[in-house]
Amino acid sequence: MNAILSAAAPLSAIAPFPLNRWWVAGFTWELTDKPLARTFLNRAMVLFRTPDGTVSALEDRCCHKDLPLSCGSVEARGLRCGYHGLLYDCAGVCIEIPGQEHIPTKARVPAYPLREQDQILWVWIGSTPESTPTEDPPHYAVHNDPKYKFGGNSVHYDAPYQLVHDNLLDLSHLGYVHLKTIGGNPGLHMNAELKVTAVDDVVRVVRLMPDSEPPPTYAAAWPFKGRIDRWQEVEFQVSHLLIWTGGMDAGSGDIRAPDREGFHMRGFHGVTPETDHTSHYFWTIATNPHPDKQDVTQLVVDQTAMTFEEDRVIIDAQWQNQRRFPGRTQLGIHVDAGPARARRVIDALVRQSHQASPGG
Amino acid sequence: MNAILSAAAPLSAIAPFPLNRWWVAGFTWELTDKPLARTFLNRAMVLFRTPDGTVSALEDRCCHKDLPLSCGSVEARGLRCGYHGLLYDCAGVCIEIPGQEHIPTKARVPAYPLREQDQILWVWIGSTPESTPTEDPPHYAVHNDPKYKFGGNSVHYDAPYQLVHDNLLDLSHLGYVHLKTIGGNPGLHMNAELKVTAVDDVVRVVRLMPDSEPPPTYAAAWPFKGRIDRWQEVEFQVSHLLIWTGGMDAGSGDIRAPDREGFHMRGFHGVTPETDHTSHYFWTIATNPHPDKQDVTQLVVDQTAMTFEEDRVIIDAQWQNQRRFPGRTQLGIHVDAGPARARRVIDALVRQSHQASPGG
Amino acid sequence: MNAILSAAAPLSAIAPFPLNRWWVAGFTWELTDKPLARTFLNRAMVLFRTPDGTVSALEDRCCHKDLPLSCGSVEARGLRCGYHGLLYDCAGVCIEIPGQEHIPTKARVPAYPLREQDQILWVWIGSTPESTPTEDPPHYAVHNDPKYKFGGNSVHYDAPYQLVHDNLLDLSHLGYVHLKTIGGNPGLHMNAELKVTAVDDVVRVVRLMPDSEPPPTYAAAWPFKGRIDRWQEVEFQVSHLLIWTGGMDAGSGDIRAPDREGFHMRGFHGVTPETDHTSHYFWTIATNPHPDKQDVTQLVVDQTAMTFEEDRVIIDAQWQNQRRFPGRTQLGIHVDAGPARARRVIDALVRQSHQASPGG
Repeated sequence: MNAILSAAAPLSAIAPFPLNRWWVAGFTWELTDKPLARTFLNRAMVLFRTPDGTVSALEDRCCHKDLPLSCGSVEARGLRCGYHGLLYDCAGVCIEIPGQEHIPTKARVPAYPLREQDQILWVWIGSTPESTPTEDPPHYAVHNDPKYKFGGNSVHYDAPYQLVHDNLLDLSHLGYVHLKTIGGNPGLHMNAELKVTAVDDVVRVVRLMPDSEPPPTYAAAWPFKGRIDRWQEVEFQVSHLLIWTGGMDAGSGDIRAPDREGFHMRGFHGVTPETDHTSHYFWTIATNPHPDKQDVTQLVVDQTAMTFEEDRVIIDAQWQNQRRFPGRTQLGIHVDAGPARARRVIDALVRQSHQASPGG
Repeated sequence: MNAILSAAAPLSAIAPFPLNRWWVAGFTWELTDKPLARTFLNRAMVLFRTPDGTVSALEDRCCHKDLPLSCGSVEARGLRCGYHGLLYDCAGVCIEIPGQEHIPTKARVPAYPLREQDQILWVWIGSTPESTPTEDPPHYAVHNDPKYKFGGNSVHYDAPYQLVHDNLLDLSHLGYVHLKTIGGNPGLHMNAELKVTAVDDVVRVVRLMPDSEPPPTYAAAWPFKGRIDRWQEVEFQVSHLLIWTGGMDAGSGDIRAPDREGFHMRGFHGVTPETDHTSHYFWTIATNPHPDKQDVTQLVVDQTAMTFEEDRVIIDAQWQNQRRFPGRTQLGIHVDAGPARARRVIDALVRQSHQASPGG
Repeated sequence: MNAILSAAAPLSAIAPFPLNRWWVAGFTWELTDKPLARTFLNRAMVLFRTPDGTVSALEDRCCHKDLPLSCGSVEARGLRCGYHGLLYDCAGVCIEIPGQEHIPTKARVPAYPLREQDQILWVWIGSTPESTPTEDPPHYAVHNDPKYKFGGNSVHYDAPYQLVHDNLLDLSHLGYVHLKTIGGNPGLHMNAELKVTAVDDVVRVVRLMPDSEPPPTYAAAWPFKGRIDRWQEVEFQVSHLLIWTGGMDAGSGDIRAPDREGFHMRGFHGVTPETDHTSHYFWTIATNPHPDKQDVTQLVVDQTAMTFEEDRVIIDAQWQNQRRFPGRTQLGIHVDAGPARARRVIDALVRQSHQASPGG
């Protein structure tokens, strides 16, 4: 039985989300031999993979008696309902009604395009039920790059997805929220120079911290000679953020080069609205182990999980407080440049999605 | 303190239920020396039995300061409120106000006719507060028949009562919901011939499975010679269903005879709406032990309890999903004949109840 | 993280409470080195004390990103937000934005006058944000009187504050609610003569029980010679009630004298609305230990805590039942005189508060 159901509120008909695009639906390892109930953009779905490897996302409701299909079981030919045994194929078409020969043509449930790529599940959500993908999902090469090892997890937020964007685009909170874990010196984070740029729907926030002391994790993972040039690069896209942090020996090369040397941590952060007020957060973190040093990947993954739990507590409290104080104006400060730019991107895409609605 | 109170939503004034009839309120063994809080058809009641054996159902609210009377205590003369000690008799009339001589005539609470018969509690709910019973509650002889032994329990559903009817009237779900307990071969259940008949407010669904292998429980309970003729007879009435299943030696007699031989399991299933969206389910199961075999009654009771828990999980999920997908059309299939007929019976009785309202 | 947040409903804009007065906000020992989240009269506040001893109550919302300030940390100069580190002084003015030199004048949050006196915290809540105290909070000398020892606690009610008033003003419930703890003989409590008087906003309920048997606690605490004259005096004020009970040797003096002899229990009962439907209850109980007898203060405190838990259960159930049966008329009886008078006082003050609103 799935926990999502406990909310049991009717889902909104039209939610103000960017449509006609791929959203992250989870990771390869989450899809086992059992169906998985997940709601994205107010659409309640059941995800499953048949033994031949086909992945499918269907509306999570049997068209006979409304039972969630996620209460059923996966078979070779598709997903069987757990109440009266109706069997649906991966396109949502009912192909068996036990005890009844005739299968009506309306015996079917809506299907959503689902792709599995780079160990990430991507679901296409269009502005109409007929909408089909107009492009492939984005590639994430790090998951297939032998230089990297990674781990990750899924987190559920009781807060709207844009509050998670705000958090990831503004690393200045490290000094306060994560004071006891990765934060270290608040002043360092707040005062480092910040550069925000935007091209099309992509917002980039870059902070460079040249000639600084390597944090303990860095020093354990990489044979630095002494002080290092550190970078933090956040790339926001609508469906996910890429956060690339790391360091190289101070003055040893171009800290802006795409193929720069040194120790790298590459984060993938899929942020997908669940409902108007709740969100999914799918993250991985990868590091490049050095042959002469211990592999710190698992340590970094564990620390990241603890860190994100600190964020979750703060963001959930923030959202609950926004509900207690509705309609209040927020004071803007210097760290808000990145988040504000990302919100403008989303606003434009939402408008675009709704204008595009009639045509699909 | 009673758990019902935790919901704390105002009860609906007029709910669309069949009125002017007896509903099952519980079992004899549930009424101890403490008051029992239960809500039926949106009417919050307190049930109690005084030492002389009189049973009573009153509105669960002291007319002084609104405390639930179910927080009080049972005395020889009635029920005493747990706040300021007002004492009510079994008709709901206040017969003592501690510290005050005069008892106003308006010091009383509404009472509902309550009967205890065949170890079943029956409550009369009319279309007006003045409504009195126009007939006796139905008898259930099995509970008093020395041929039978029985056990049972009360179950609370977070789902409307008609979803429980649907489930009990359609035994084809056994192969899917109860695959791991009593279900066995799904094909057997789905393909057996089904006969639905209706006379007045009673719907009967009969399935016969002649010349089949006896299930393990049957074989343990009865000295069958080999294959058996099995029957499943479901009789729906508005307030309860009777489910009679069993088997006799194949070809040994008339499988339709009321006094047929063999192993019998007789289920009593009282289904009473609690609120618009929640229900009570009061069940017993009886078997007829054979002198030469072990008594399997307790085993059957335990298996039935496990089975009904499987149903509860499915039906609660079904209801939560109906709330997530409001206003959807359901696809009708062959197994729906019995449930559909029962719904028409209820619809007619609801209309009748509301036309009858002015006159009581 | 504070539990209050879990409710997360928007707070009412204008609640029907008496305004422009001091309300009890807690006790000295509750304010440690951590901020304390509490809501009074629908106003969500964070309380804190800086190391120099200044106490402060601010709106519990950072003006930057809405995080509850109660998620932050107390520093020498004030309270620092736990998200981006904005620092507020005890008047709610932001005095530091990390990483940003300029602090806009609108970077501030509303402050509420807070006083710490006699180990009680008092908060002033006006009809406008600009309202300032027009008088000092009431003094409670017992907490500073060397004759007395005391203890106490804070209780949260899921019920409106006036139901707590009703309970405290009507000691006749002792015989029923507290039958197993302090109640003793219900008849004694119900039949004792009751005198209710009211002067301005103060309601007094006095019950005298001359020439009665001392309860076990009394006998253990004081060297009575035999029977005693007992008194119960309840003084209701809008923000708190004083309940003075005790006994002296029968016939040994004037039982109405302010400086009467004997064994005394003095209760302080601050009742502060939290929201329209929930309340804070801040209580202490003090006794005057006799040099020749054991000190029963801790015993009395423990018994009082148990007793108030009995009240909480009843009052919460009463409120939940009032919500189940909305709009019902209550039957008035003899014990309601004190509570009814107090409700008239509150009603008049609410009207007065709202007339006074424009002027503050």
